[in-house]
Amino acid sequence: MAGAEWESLEQCLEKNLPLADLREVKRILYGKETRELHLPSGAFEAASKGDFELRGYGFEAAEEQQRRPRIVRVGLVQNRTPLPADTPVVKQVTALHRRIEAITEVAATCGVNIICFQEAWTMPFAFCTRERLPWTEFAESAEDGPTIRFCQELARKHDMVVVSPILERDAEHGDVLWNTAVVISNSGAILGKTRKNHIPRVGDFNESTYYMEGNLGHPVFQTQFGRIAVNICYGRHHPLNWLMYSVNGAEIIFNPSATVGALSCGCESCTLHPPWRPAGKMLYSSRSSTVCLISENVIDGESLWPIEARNAAIANHCFTCAINRVGEERFPNEFTSGDGKKAHRDFGYFYGSSYVAAPDGSRTPGLSRNQDGLLVTELDLNLCRQVNDIWGFKMTGRYEMYAQELAEAVKPNYSPNIVKE
Amino acid sequence: MAGAEWESLEQCLEKNLPLADLREVKRILYGKETRELHLPSGAFEAASKGDFELRGYGFEAAEEQQRRPRIVRVGLVQNRTPLPADTPVVKQVTALHRRIEAITEVAATCGVNIICFQEAWTMPFAFCTRERLPWTEFAESAEDGPTIRFCQELARKHDMVVVSPILERDAEHGDVLWNTAVVISNSGAILGKTRKNHIPRVGDFNESTYYMEGNLGHPVFQTQFGRIAVNICYGRHHPLNWLMYSVNGAEIIFNPSATVGALSCGCESCTLHPPWRPAGKMLYSSRSSTVCLISENVIDGESLWPIEARNAAIANHCFTCAINRVGEERFPNEFTSGDGKKAHRDFGYFYGSSYVAAPDGSRTPGLSRNQDGLLVTELDLNLCRQVNDIWGFKMTGRYEMYAQELAEAVKPNYSPNIVKE
Repeated sequence: MAGAEWESLEQCLEKNLPLADLREVKRILYGKETRELHLPSGAFEAASKGDFELRGYGFEAAEEQQRRPRIVRVGLVQNRTPLPADTPVVKQVTALHRRIEAITEVAATCGVNIICFQEAWTMPFAFCTRERLPWTEFAESAEDGPTIRFCQELARKHDMVVVSPILERDAEHGDVLWNTAVVISNSGAILGKTRKNHIPRVGDFNESTYYMEGNLGHPVFQTQFGRIAVNICYGRHHPLNWLMYSVNGAEIIFNPSATVGALSCGCESCTLHPPWRPAGKMLYSSRSSTVCLISENVIDGESLWPIEARNAAIANHCFTCAINRVGEERFPNEFTSGDGKKAHRDFGYFYGSSYVAAPDGSRTPGLSRNQDGLLVTELDLNLCRQVNDIWGFKMTGRYEMYAQELAEAVKPNYSPNIVKE
Repeated sequence: MAGAEWESLEQCLEKNLPLADLREVKRILYGKETRELHLPSGAFEAASKGDFELRGYGFEAAEEQQRRPRIVRVGLVQNRTPLPADTPVVKQVTALHRRIEAITEVAATCGVNIICFQEAWTMPFAFCTRERLPWTEFAESAEDGPTIRFCQELARKHDMVVVSPILERDAEHGDVLWNTAVVISNSGAILGKTRKNHIPRVGDFNESTYYMEGNLGHPVFQTQFGRIAVNICYGRHHPLNWLMYSVNGAEIIFNPSATVGALSCGCESCTLHPPWRPAGKMLYSSRSSTVCLISENVIDGESLWPIEARNAAIANHCFTCAINRVGEERFPNEFTSGDGKKAHRDFGYFYGSSYVAAPDGSRTPGLSRNQDGLLVTELDLNLCRQVNDIWGFKMTGRYEMYAQELAEAVKPNYSPNIVKE
């Protein structure tokens, strides 16, 4: 009933709450109800055969006189790495290409116009190891690597914009690595690339070992279906990152991520029963001497997941698409996590739960916590400006004041505005 | 089972979910469990007698070698206006003083060190009317008005820091009004004041009719119990506002607010059965021709309430305290709301639900949606720096880049960074 086996918040609420309560709970938790999207039955059959979840939702906007509805369907893909991390690199990449090809095929039958895959989707999230080979061999050129060529084919075949987050090898600039998303037009042309602007140094996310903060600013890509941007993973914790994409005109901001839930605290109980694989109720009987509920110095990131991308949709009058990978990834060599825990080989539990949030603060239910999935969501982009006109956070944003205050605050001799008695 | 009668999300979940599911739901919704605080039984008796809810929770931090725990208890007060809005001004203010005095008395027995009242707590939230008299008569000097003197007495008597959000009349600067919070030291001295930095023009929140955006920047107040700041109401929608308080060193940011849930859409059904007083299931059978679920152009702010202050606690490694008022307020003269709805006299339903969020993303349950209440929360301020050291959003924040980008973005000739095919 908990941990990895626990399917989703929504499923649990739907199973247990009386209908009237369920509606009120959903209203408070999710805002205005999203419409269920009618998707072709063949798509559900293909998803079932391919062993992945398929869900569809739609957000509405008011009718306008001067603009037609600007309807776009986005597809969010979450998945496990199909092969173990010690399989040869090329085999792993090929298996991932095949998996994504199959899911994208279904997305096409669902009318998806823009698809986005998870962060560094062609590889296991191996940065916890701090090892170089073979992990750096997953890096590719963002201009003509095999994955980009593969995505260009998908884009052309399905008339679909493809957002492909990869580990980039930049041969033109000292052969360095970047955490990059390549945006491919539905024509098959590479529209451009964007890089992860904020790099974590948290727990197993040793990414600063491999690549630096992005140097491409906050580009927004004008596609045939709307203006999109990509805020990669840890950048979702930084409200200014979302803001600058929005200031540059993004109507949809994708947030391809790789994030795990509660980590073990290193106590004996946790080591025996990692929190993401709890043994019955044990780990939840907090404050006993022999068992613990994710102890003091560990943070349960899963409770943040529903908050941050959704807050960004609200604050910036745009749609945000939060995508996480699924499952456990095990590595050949032991590594430690800087948390007092014994050396181990697994990276915790990627809890899926991908979702879309709208500018009015409403959101779709999440995909499963433990299954591959495709979330198809129909947006009317007119909602962005409509909410902007109602709430006016940009109009009332006072950015000039903040530009000045921030410019002051970063000076080495800045004296914070603290009032004392 | 819905609308005003519906007590709270937490109560509903606790009543209906099996224990194992409840724990998992709470973990995902609220993060690490908050400890229930042991408060004196006399306090509960006084609260019961005084007809207000009393709840207590505690957040933990890890032990450190070089710092002792920095324990502080904050009190959040939410309340109705006890007298109708057409009662003479002085009587209304006096009744509110008496109400707050009684609640603060209980807070003192609960060991509260810093108490914060709701936005413009000495008056009904009359800005929906756009009328001046008598509402502007609720305005007071922030230096020596009767409410400030009243709060100074409370502060001295209870050795308590008092945060008092009022409508300020600034006689020294052209007699203008401000939406202000006065911070009174536990010594009884006025520590200073801070003003609402972002003013809404949304629905019935016609506040820009009465006062301008605050001109005092982002001051932080060093109290005996920790560094605090006050982000008033609509400022919670602005991530940069929270950020600057945090950059100036705030460990606790109060967000005294007055906010209502779903508004009527103006259709016949809504006019007969306002969404905050639903008639059975009717209003939830969306998309029928005769009834509607809060229609297209109306936003249900209640679903945003759990998101924004909590996101700010996460993003800024600090505690945030979200306070809302309770109940319906009716005004003598009809007014319209700019939403096609007929003229009416009420301002919707202030849904209470005050809560505290911690830097690790966990939060307390909310107070009731429909009862006066006092939320006592014990914080260990050491948690702020501990989380800062783990997640490092400030270290990885790249504020210099954003200061530059924002400074560019506000220029009249700014050309957004949009990539086209």
